[in-house]
Amino acid sequence: MSNYDKNLDKNNANFVPLTPLSFLERAKDIYPNYDALIYEDRKYTWSEIFKRCTKFASALEKIGIGTGDTVSVMAFNTPEIFEAHYSVPMCGAVLNTINTRLDAKTVAYILDHSEAKVLIVDRQLHSVIEKALSISKIKPIIIDIQDNFADQKLLKKIGDKEYENFLSSGDENYKWKIPKDEWQAISLSYTSGTTGNPKGVVYHHRGSYLMSTGSAVAWNMPNRLNFLTVVPMFHCNGWGYPWTIPMLNGKTICLRAIDIKKIFDLIEKHEITHFGGAPIVLNMITGAPESDKKKLHRKVYVLTAGAPPPSIIFKKMKALGFEVMHVYGLTETYGHVTQCAWNDEWNKLDEEKQNEIKARQGVRYPNTEGVTIMDPETMKEVPRDGKTIGEIMIRGNIVMKGYFKDKDATEKAMKGGWFHSGDLAVMHPDGYVKIQDRSKDIIISGGENISSIEIENTLAKHPGVSIAAVVAKPDEKWGEVPCAFIEKVQDKEVTEKELIDFCRETLAGFKIPKKIEFCELPKTSTGKIQKFELRKKAKEIN
Amino acid sequence: MSNYDKNLDKNNANFVPLTPLSFLERAKDIYPNYDALIYEDRKYTWSEIFKRCTKFASALEKIGIGTGDTVSVMAFNTPEIFEAHYSVPMCGAVLNTINTRLDAKTVAYILDHSEAKVLIVDRQLHSVIEKALSISKIKPIIIDIQDNFADQKLLKKIGDKEYENFLSSGDENYKWKIPKDEWQAISLSYTSGTTGNPKGVVYHHRGSYLMSTGSAVAWNMPNRLNFLTVVPMFHCNGWGYPWTIPMLNGKTICLRAIDIKKIFDLIEKHEITHFGGAPIVLNMITGAPESDKKKLHRKVYVLTAGAPPPSIIFKKMKALGFEVMHVYGLTETYGHVTQCAWNDEWNKLDEEKQNEIKARQGVRYPNTEGVTIMDPETMKEVPRDGKTIGEIMIRGNIVMKGYFKDKDATEKAMKGGWFHSGDLAVMHPDGYVKIQDRSKDIIISGGENISSIEIENTLAKHPGVSIAAVVAKPDEKWGEVPCAFIEKVQDKEVTEKELIDFCRETLAGFKIPKKIEFCELPKTSTGKIQKFELRKKAKEIN
Repeated sequence: MSNYDKNLDKNNANFVPLTPLSFLERAKDIYPNYDALIYEDRKYTWSEIFKRCTKFASALEKIGIGTGDTVSVMAFNTPEIFEAHYSVPMCGAVLNTINTRLDAKTVAYILDHSEAKVLIVDRQLHSVIEKALSISKIKPIIIDIQDNFADQKLLKKIGDKEYENFLSSGDENYKWKIPKDEWQAISLSYTSGTTGNPKGVVYHHRGSYLMSTGSAVAWNMPNRLNFLTVVPMFHCNGWGYPWTIPMLNGKTICLRAIDIKKIFDLIEKHEITHFGGAPIVLNMITGAPESDKKKLHRKVYVLTAGAPPPSIIFKKMKALGFEVMHVYGLTETYGHVTQCAWNDEWNKLDEEKQNEIKARQGVRYPNTEGVTIMDPETMKEVPRDGKTIGEIMIRGNIVMKGYFKDKDATEKAMKGGWFHSGDLAVMHPDGYVKIQDRSKDIIISGGENISSIEIENTLAKHPGVSIAAVVAKPDEKWGEVPCAFIEKVQDKEVTEKELIDFCRETLAGFKIPKKIEFCELPKTSTGKIQKFELRKKAKEIN
Repeated sequence: MSNYDKNLDKNNANFVPLTPLSFLERAKDIYPNYDALIYEDRKYTWSEIFKRCTKFASALEKIGIGTGDTVSVMAFNTPEIFEAHYSVPMCGAVLNTINTRLDAKTVAYILDHSEAKVLIVDRQLHSVIEKALSISKIKPIIIDIQDNFADQKLLKKIGDKEYENFLSSGDENYKWKIPKDEWQAISLSYTSGTTGNPKGVVYHHRGSYLMSTGSAVAWNMPNRLNFLTVVPMFHCNGWGYPWTIPMLNGKTICLRAIDIKKIFDLIEKHEITHFGGAPIVLNMITGAPESDKKKLHRKVYVLTAGAPPPSIIFKKMKALGFEVMHVYGLTETYGHVTQCAWNDEWNKLDEEKQNEIKARQGVRYPNTEGVTIMDPETMKEVPRDGKTIGEIMIRGNIVMKGYFKDKDATEKAMKGGWFHSGDLAVMHPDGYVKIQDRSKDIIISGGENISSIEIENTLAKHPGVSIAAVVAKPDEKWGEVPCAFIEKVQDKEVTEKELIDFCRETLAGFKIPKKIEFCELPKTSTGKIQKFELRKKAKEIN
């Protein structure tokens, strides 16, 4: 035993469990009277928000909620879901955010599986909740969010309590509970689960703290920035930003629902400097009618993640004055864990080549110990040749605790000491990762692996294409062939033949879609294309 | 036991001990061929530095150095001491940096107390080392740093090994050792110890990691910045920057010794964006002859700490184009843990008032859980009145593990769950801390506490004063009275009477120095005024 191990133990002065909850208290101590949270006609300072969160935590405790209990929230991006990121864990409980677009059956499953004791819900969602509660075994206490900007036609009263009333039952001077152990659960998020039941991803306080410090460093986020919540806070806890922004003493501006004209209005009104959004949202921004757009008076930094962005989107966003950084991650990794960190020598390349590079998933965040591509069977790294496909593997403190009540799935996902992402990718010689496809989306044609993303990227460059999605279509001869579904740019005409000719200019013959359909694409609430729906459709097409 | 505690344990995929060592590997992975470290005619890329550090770690391991062993370094700011911040802990050992200005007796004490197995030393320091080794019981292996920019007159050869030769004995492909536990010691720094023997402050990997993320967030440090090492790396590990800058993929430019003309030259040559320096160094910068200064072509961000800065220094630095942020901390807290975070409403104040605010120690860093002012006897917080003096108390993950082999001093310093800083301060109503004095520097005159710093601040505003230091002089009637020692601005004349009249304009009668002496002030190697020397002198003055 070395002298460094003697009489140098942890004590209350030198060891405090890491938790992002302390960021809110610090912001309140430094800037008590500065705006912290803005939503429509509501505005809260740091000391108001801190008091609201601690009072709400106290109110939860008074009805018996504490460490290890689940509090579910099904809400749009309004102040209440931001506050829940603090109030719920402040009494020791675990925050379970629920996707607002889910059907009643899935919501019922989540309420039962998560053992929710309380459900905070936007009144606009009551019809689905009513149905869910008629199915679920569990009957949580319902706390209604009464929002004047909700769709008033949809409002019914079914809650047991109303948010503001409930909040006011809390103690003004409640002392929030720092977790005893930073490994304690802070949140529970269910994956969308395209097959089978959704899985519950558990985050801990340590991971959420490190997600915040890592994000700030990787994205050069300055103090006192103005952040717009475009990403739903129910999605990986809004990529961690309800915790990261208070760490930076930044202002959060709530956007209840995606509305491109409103995004431009809020950027101007609140001098927004940063926001995040899925590629599909960026596509809505660039494709919006000119009357909805506004000239930016300063650079606005945008993070995009959630699906591999087509390279053309970088060009379109830049033309509007946005600076986009592409990042990659999963619900299981607290959101993004890689970034396409820029290299100076790329400045010499032409714009198209630059945008192709920007579409790479890139290199690891500073909070991430390892991101690599392996053969999942042998757990050997693939060669750095930009060609050999393997599975993205991730290791670090921002990999989830595991799946809630699912030992087998947890062990399978963490097999061999790496988190198996399920994303297929290649490693470029410079160590930058580029996704080829989700395991289940890859198209195998005549023994060749075809990346659906590569074909989508090509199609997206055609001026008539707004969004392209490519899936496998069963084929007697080849096994599978690519089949494309296209959302067209408004008022532009384009034909199947034109697009096939366009693909022929750059793609190998076996990669050219054998069939192209024009339609509106089915999407999840987070903007991901529902490829399983398209695969069904592709089967039926002749 | 809640379901959140079942089957959700730590494993290799989701838990990695926090260590700043991983920052270097990440920088190497992302930007292998970019400049990482520059010193005079030497330049290393990230992959070169990474290889040098791992090879050196391997060479240390080959001679038997491992976990729990101490490796001492006594060196100026050259690449070798930067590298030691990685190579030494990479083989599990603890880095003990030694102040280059210490006398042989103290160096001998440190070598013995730290149980140093290896001493890496700049050859210019061999005369003191030779003497130290003749006193010390321990005889570490000596590795010589052979620097062409050392003072060649002082070089003797006494080392057992030479740095570059030793490095080349290491293994090219050595795998560095991540600590098993993030609480493992990473470094050992001895306090200057104005009374008694110096104490050994032990840092751990977790704290150094969090110091880096906290610094980057608090100081808005961007990626790829250019950092000049003005603060000696032997001083609190250069405030943690040898670890923080690689986290940001930033470039470190080494400055061997303080030379103001050279600082301006390097700022221009390497487009320096950031550096830190004690107030005394800023004073040297602003007081330098015009021929040594250069116009800045871009804003340069400066962090100042180490002693309470006189408010006038902010004005002088701003005039040259530097943006100074004042921070505060101690060796025991990994460097700075508070910052004078700016409030918008202060922009309306006149410049003098603004500069007075900038001289406050401020509010806590994001990595610091608590900074408050307490009566050290009762451990009760003092009122926030800007008047009541108490002791600054600090709590968080950036408080040291403790003092090496000194259980009593550790317990005393951490009594009551807070680290006792020994600095006396008031808390302003807005929660900003302002130091009045070190406990031992306060002057008690006729029962009144007088802050020596307040008087120094006043004197420093006089155009003829370069630096002012005020200490207690024993007095039959009052117990103690203030006595000032002044370093004059070159070529300016100023008299005792003039300065006393100047003080009378703003200070209460009992605070006016009863005696003023003009002389060169005795300083420590880190630029702190040696007040104990001045107190001796003050006693003798009639």
